[in-house]
Amino acid sequence: MTKFVYLFREADGNREKFGGKGANLAMMTSLGMPVPQGFIITTEACTKYYEDGKVIDKDIIAQVFESLAALEKETGKKFGDEENPFLVSVRSGSRASMPGMMDTILNLGLTDISVKGLAKKTNNPRFAYDCYRRFIQMYSDVVCGLGKGFFEVVIDQEKEKRGISLDTEFTAEDLMELIKIFKDYYKREKGEEFPQDPKEQLVGAIEAVFRSWDNPRAIAYRRMNDIPSSWGTAVNVQAMVFGNMGETSGTGVAFTRDPSTGEKKLYGEYLMNSQGEDVVAGIRTPLTIDHLKETNKAVYDEFVSYSNKLEQYFKDMQDMEFTIEEGKLYMLQTRNGKRTANAAIRIACELVEEGLVTKEEALLKIDPKQLDELLHPTFEQKALKVAKPIATGLAASPGAACGKIAFTAEEAMERAQTEPVLLVRLETSAEDIEGMNVAKGILTGRGGGTSHAAVVARGMGRCCVAGCSALIIDEEAKTLTVGDKVYTSDDYLSLDGSTGNVYEGKIPTTEAEISGYFETIMKWADEVRTLKVRTNADAPHEAKTARKFGAEGIGLCRTEHMFFAEDRILAVREMIVAENAEQREKALAKLLPMQRKDFEELYEAMGEYPVTIRFLDPPLHEFLPSKKEDIKVLAEQMNMSFDKLNAIIEELHEVNPMLGHRGCRLSITYPEIAAMQTKAVIEAALNRKAKGATVIPEIMIPLVGDVKELKYVKDIVVETAEAVMAERGEKIEYHVGTMIEIPRAALTADEIAKEADFFSFGTNDLTQMTYGFSRDDAAKFLEDYYAKKIFEQDPFQKVDQIGVGKLMKMAIADGRATKADLKCGICGEHGGDPATVEFCNEIGLDYVSCSPFRVPIAILAAAHAAIKQK
Amino acid sequence: MTKFVYLFREADGNREKFGGKGANLAMMTSLGMPVPQGFIITTEACTKYYEDGKVIDKDIIAQVFESLAALEKETGKKFGDEENPFLVSVRSGSRASMPGMMDTILNLGLTDISVKGLAKKTNNPRFAYDCYRRFIQMYSDVVCGLGKGFFEVVIDQEKEKRGISLDTEFTAEDLMELIKIFKDYYKREKGEEFPQDPKEQLVGAIEAVFRSWDNPRAIAYRRMNDIPSSWGTAVNVQAMVFGNMGETSGTGVAFTRDPSTGEKKLYGEYLMNSQGEDVVAGIRTPLTIDHLKETNKAVYDEFVSYSNKLEQYFKDMQDMEFTIEEGKLYMLQTRNGKRTANAAIRIACELVEEGLVTKEEALLKIDPKQLDELLHPTFEQKALKVAKPIATGLAASPGAACGKIAFTAEEAMERAQTEPVLLVRLETSAEDIEGMNVAKGILTGRGGGTSHAAVVARGMGRCCVAGCSALIIDEEAKTLTVGDKVYTSDDYLSLDGSTGNVYEGKIPTTEAEISGYFETIMKWADEVRTLKVRTNADAPHEAKTARKFGAEGIGLCRTEHMFFAEDRILAVREMIVAENAEQREKALAKLLPMQRKDFEELYEAMGEYPVTIRFLDPPLHEFLPSKKEDIKVLAEQMNMSFDKLNAIIEELHEVNPMLGHRGCRLSITYPEIAAMQTKAVIEAALNRKAKGATVIPEIMIPLVGDVKELKYVKDIVVETAEAVMAERGEKIEYHVGTMIEIPRAALTADEIAKEADFFSFGTNDLTQMTYGFSRDDAAKFLEDYYAKKIFEQDPFQKVDQIGVGKLMKMAIADGRATKADLKCGICGEHGGDPATVEFCNEIGLDYVSCSPFRVPIAILAAAHAAIKQK
Repeated sequence: MTKFVYLFREADGNREKFGGKGANLAMMTSLGMPVPQGFIITTEACTKYYEDGKVIDKDIIAQVFESLAALEKETGKKFGDEENPFLVSVRSGSRASMPGMMDTILNLGLTDISVKGLAKKTNNPRFAYDCYRRFIQMYSDVVCGLGKGFFEVVIDQEKEKRGISLDTEFTAEDLMELIKIFKDYYKREKGEEFPQDPKEQLVGAIEAVFRSWDNPRAIAYRRMNDIPSSWGTAVNVQAMVFGNMGETSGTGVAFTRDPSTGEKKLYGEYLMNSQGEDVVAGIRTPLTIDHLKETNKAVYDEFVSYSNKLEQYFKDMQDMEFTIEEGKLYMLQTRNGKRTANAAIRIACELVEEGLVTKEEALLKIDPKQLDELLHPTFEQKALKVAKPIATGLAASPGAACGKIAFTAEEAMERAQTEPVLLVRLETSAEDIEGMNVAKGILTGRGGGTSHAAVVARGMGRCCVAGCSALIIDEEAKTLTVGDKVYTSDDYLSLDGSTGNVYEGKIPTTEAEISGYFETIMKWADEVRTLKVRTNADAPHEAKTARKFGAEGIGLCRTEHMFFAEDRILAVREMIVAENAEQREKALAKLLPMQRKDFEELYEAMGEYPVTIRFLDPPLHEFLPSKKEDIKVLAEQMNMSFDKLNAIIEELHEVNPMLGHRGCRLSITYPEIAAMQTKAVIEAALNRKAKGATVIPEIMIPLVGDVKELKYVKDIVVETAEAVMAERGEKIEYHVGTMIEIPRAALTADEIAKEADFFSFGTNDLTQMTYGFSRDDAAKFLEDYYAKKIFEQDPFQKVDQIGVGKLMKMAIADGRATKADLKCGICGEHGGDPATVEFCNEIGLDYVSCSPFRVPIAILAAAHAAIKQK
Repeated sequence: MTKFVYLFREADGNREKFGGKGANLAMMTSLGMPVPQGFIITTEACTKYYEDGKVIDKDIIAQVFESLAALEKETGKKFGDEENPFLVSVRSGSRASMPGMMDTILNLGLTDISVKGLAKKTNNPRFAYDCYRRFIQMYSDVVCGLGKGFFEVVIDQEKEKRGISLDTEFTAEDLMELIKIFKDYYKREKGEEFPQDPKEQLVGAIEAVFRSWDNPRAIAYRRMNDIPSSWGTAVNVQAMVFGNMGETSGTGVAFTRDPSTGEKKLYGEYLMNSQGEDVVAGIRTPLTIDHLKETNKAVYDEFVSYSNKLEQYFKDMQDMEFTIEEGKLYMLQTRNGKRTANAAIRIACELVEEGLVTKEEALLKIDPKQLDELLHPTFEQKALKVAKPIATGLAASPGAACGKIAFTAEEAMERAQTEPVLLVRLETSAEDIEGMNVAKGILTGRGGGTSHAAVVARGMGRCCVAGCSALIIDEEAKTLTVGDKVYTSDDYLSLDGSTGNVYEGKIPTTEAEISGYFETIMKWADEVRTLKVRTNADAPHEAKTARKFGAEGIGLCRTEHMFFAEDRILAVREMIVAENAEQREKALAKLLPMQRKDFEELYEAMGEYPVTIRFLDPPLHEFLPSKKEDIKVLAEQMNMSFDKLNAIIEELHEVNPMLGHRGCRLSITYPEIAAMQTKAVIEAALNRKAKGATVIPEIMIPLVGDVKELKYVKDIVVETAEAVMAERGEKIEYHVGTMIEIPRAALTADEIAKEADFFSFGTNDLTQMTYGFSRDDAAKFLEDYYAKKIFEQDPFQKVDQIGVGKLMKMAIADGRATKADLKCGICGEHGGDPATVEFCNEIGLDYVSCSPFRVPIAILAAAHAAIKQK
């Protein structure tokens, strides 16, 4: 029979099996630290639970009770006992840390009988009944789905009745009364008594943890963080120790280094007479760990020694939870700490300096996605000097953010589509996670540096100012009051996550620089990676930004973006409404000098690096207005009748524009367009040559599905290019390649490679056509797909390696079978996604191309890929 | 050096190399028939011409002149000679017969000098100058692109001037005058004299034939007949013999059997004192071949003997051209004759009876596509008895057709989109081919049974009445006058292609039957084929028609077609606007009994054969109106506000509906729909079971791209089906399979096969997504693709074997690797295309499914495939 349940001392560091929390508890146990003992139900048990149709196997339950018996024996306590009851916590613990995403139950084992035992044993009835009422609340909510609402309302009513304001002011008798109300409610709602069998409680709690693996929050978190649902969660059942046993007890969390800056010093917070989530929930503002040094040096020193030992052991910054029970220190958990990007790069560099890890190990400790934080603007120093903060909170997650105020996550999600928003909440909880994700920044009125808002914001690289107690937030009235000034949803605020300052209005920002630790990391990454990183850039300023971030060329310049500029859209429209090739050529002739200038500037910005220019791609109707009044204006402007222009626009209408007359299909109908664009590309390169620069332009033909399409357009390109060069009496090298963005192109890559100098995977369109859904329309039903676990990932964020990836692999293999040195790259938006970059490295692409702000991310991801491939 | 030019006696029956005409000329030569000698320039030379950028290789020209010299020596005549000039015809001849599609030049070798030689030698100056003016006309048009117009106008003017009406009335002097005018025109237009070097003429003519391979008519013909452009055409250069040398000379064509009925008797026409295309062009109405028997029995008997010999040799009905030059018979060409479907099946059966061919060989002689003619309605006998024809012409191509009159091909093409049209022309020419293709039938005022109209119409299976001289057709005024009655574009006519009768108005039709020769052929086909043939049918009457035609089940029942019926569309709309699952289920409950009844009727129509039911596929907005006024009416009908209904409709709008919320995606969002449809399918089958019938329904889930989609919907199906059966206390067998119509489904077929009992390739959507174009929009640009030879075939007619076919092969292989006995079929419209059927047989499909009227076509194509695979 498979072993599904392990005592901590029987387990080891196998995270796949025991989850992160379990594996680390096992390791701490083996390092001889004071860990309250317990056992782990493996992730395999969770997987089995789902496979069996959400039923816990009997064998597993038997193993649970065996381990429980072992613990009872060890501690001398008994489950449900009237004298010396054994109480446990039940917590999730998956392979990857998912803070706050899944469920936790504390004080399990309390019943009407055992609560008396606890009171007697601790000689502290108030404490015992407080534990019991907490347990009933948690169990009712987490295990039985009764929610938190009723309980909170009752507590508030009872406080009011007694004229008290804090939970701690309830007496033991008050609490017994509360317990009665809670239990009555439970019976009313569930049709049965609150479970008085601790074993029944335990099984219920374990199942609740398994179930929580699939709650909507957890699914959303996994989607954001590329965690497969097949991993499952382990369950940790651990003997309770109590931080809420009085003023010599307490609970805290601490990091071995500052998670915000990376500075090497103990960084933490604790609260005396508190339990569990009290510290991180941000309900009371906790004390710093330094305060513990002053008040209880022995415990502090002991903690520091464990802390050092753990960092040495795990070779990374640790995030630890501890409890002090009547003066005795217990270590409850440790894990590699979440950190800001600034902290991540500093810690990585310093760990190498300290000789703890190699450069390659250090690189792997930095999540490429996190670099995003470092690449976004900060406030302009000049503007910042004159700006006066209206309030200051904790600098919980660095960065600068501007936006209008949103008072709920829903509101943020809705409004973020059209304007920048800041999520402003009294405190955040797991339900707010999607709202936090869309907000530019997060501002809370309560909670410290390890509050939910702070932890999650840092994970997301989102700017956050937390615990800003000067704010009076009325979520119902949707007002934020600071002093006598009232702000509403229409007001802009600016947040500085590096100082904690909150400003009124919009403060101008400056762009990020690559220097210091960041530069070191990028240098190390460049040393190990083999995959090149290019950028998608349509304008010189984008190209310059990308170069600064390390881009090694332009992988995609979308020429149509230039067509929308005000000084050219009219010429573009003239071209579209032209009735014959002659008229069309006349309009194109107006565009030629502008395109040529664009390309010259792009070449200049890129220096010697290659520049890939994609020919006109979108359907022509995108350049024309669709509203009657706009058509009228344009008709006048173009000296045409409304009816005629309207007829042209109607004629251009397409049922499925995505699958319509666009890409190379345009050049097949109107070869003049390809000819003009070729002229601009080649003339611009010749102009640069005249100035002493070397440019090797790469012309990219979009939407090819058959080699004959490519051949037809390529013939125009070559003929035009040769004519231009003959006219100038100068030669340059240039390449003609194609996008691989239509399934048929990938399927016939052997043929296409005969005519192509390079392939560039357009994974946006390739994904749409391979899946048969359009990005514009899929959003509506993809939510159902996530909710029903049909999709775990957004295939537009991360390349679908199974289906789309199969086409990519085929195309590379078949293309290179025809032309061994065929250059292959990717220029879809996936090019900046770390998982995709790794996949691209694996399948042998030469380069990825992504937006300028993703270049460093791609560089680090490419380094990761190279290291992992070794 | 490659040999590109062969004398007839050096060549053989290799059609790939010598083209059909050349190969047959070689064979006739070897059979000792009186064939004017000549040489063949191979199809490889044509291919090389295009590869070399439309240049004829020097070596080829040298070989041409070598062969020419050999012929001169043999005949004792000399090219361009003043005494005894050698004249040739230059004709195209591709592997497959393409009648009238490419160019022919006669009398080549005539110059100002050699025309005198011809006059002297024949002692017939009128004849010689008539040949020369004909040659100048042809050469100017075909080789130099000057068109026919000028020459025809001049001839008309000159006739008028002289008060004559026939070409034959011109004297030699008249013709010399004409020649002068023609040559002056040539010089004016071309800036140089009409070529007086016969060798220059010859090279020009050869190139013109090569060029003609790519003229728009030829491209269109190839597309209609699946002929690849890579085949190229051979060129036949043959010594001229003259049917226009006076009244003892003539030209004719004849078939060894009646091409209309298949009856075994010589069938042909000829014209004395005429040349080349005069007979088939339909300008003068020719005499029947029986008339020759009476007037020149010796020549007739000689011809009959050749005719019999050729049919025995080629084992098929022959279509021959001959010329009588001053009483001597020459055979100019022979080929397997085009025939009607009725003739084709009769000939095939009789060739077997005669012991000339085996059953399998006989089957291969019938083009599956042609059976189409036999499957369409004929006029109701009762209605026909009382109808009085307004005119009678030649019964040129059988069938019955009704439509409004279109006087030009352009008009026919335009109007055929919205109404049935008949193309009514004085005579047709190759330019009319697309107009003929869209017309229901063709009616001409001039020409015989071998006129262009008749030949092409038979090839297309289009009903045709030709040479109806009672008609006065004014193409300009767009009127058709018969007696004193005038018909316009607004009038309906009915044509009977089997009797030649033309009727006024619309005559009701009856459906086709499979009997007689047809039945025999179908029986033979059933004996050899292994591929099953099913039908796409949504209604019982379609299912019945298909059964009659031999269908072995339903491969696709589109349930949404039932949703549009008047009695259910309101319930469908209620379902769509429902605000929650409960409302939706209420609306669905109204649909359930109707769907159940539909399915029962379908099962009944299909007997024991399998019925595949596809679940709801189209996006929901297709069921709602889009015009404001219709929305208003519906809103009232549904007791909703206009604004609310309008908002729902707008919400449902999609940018790319083809890639939107449809197929299984609907059932994922609204599982109630799949549940209702499952209930209907299973309850209907149980109802049939109660009546003693056995039904094994096949439920088909559309638009699956990931196995989890299929799994999700399948779980609903299974759960519902089990519940229904449990309720009824009865069990039936049923299968759940999926469409493979999304590239990703084909790419992940190994996974999908785990959940699917069968695969059915939806090649319509699979083609759209693999190519990345939508059928609704592609028509606009595909014309450019054909014109530029990027596509040769419409991928929606004939499966793209390279790209889409690769996906199909992968899916079958991967699917069967998972599940060895996985049943695979095709239900796209390609299922009735013979080339696709052959491909399906080759890649191992179990069945094809097509529209009822294509079932016999698919059956014969499946037999062809099986025979060829042997």
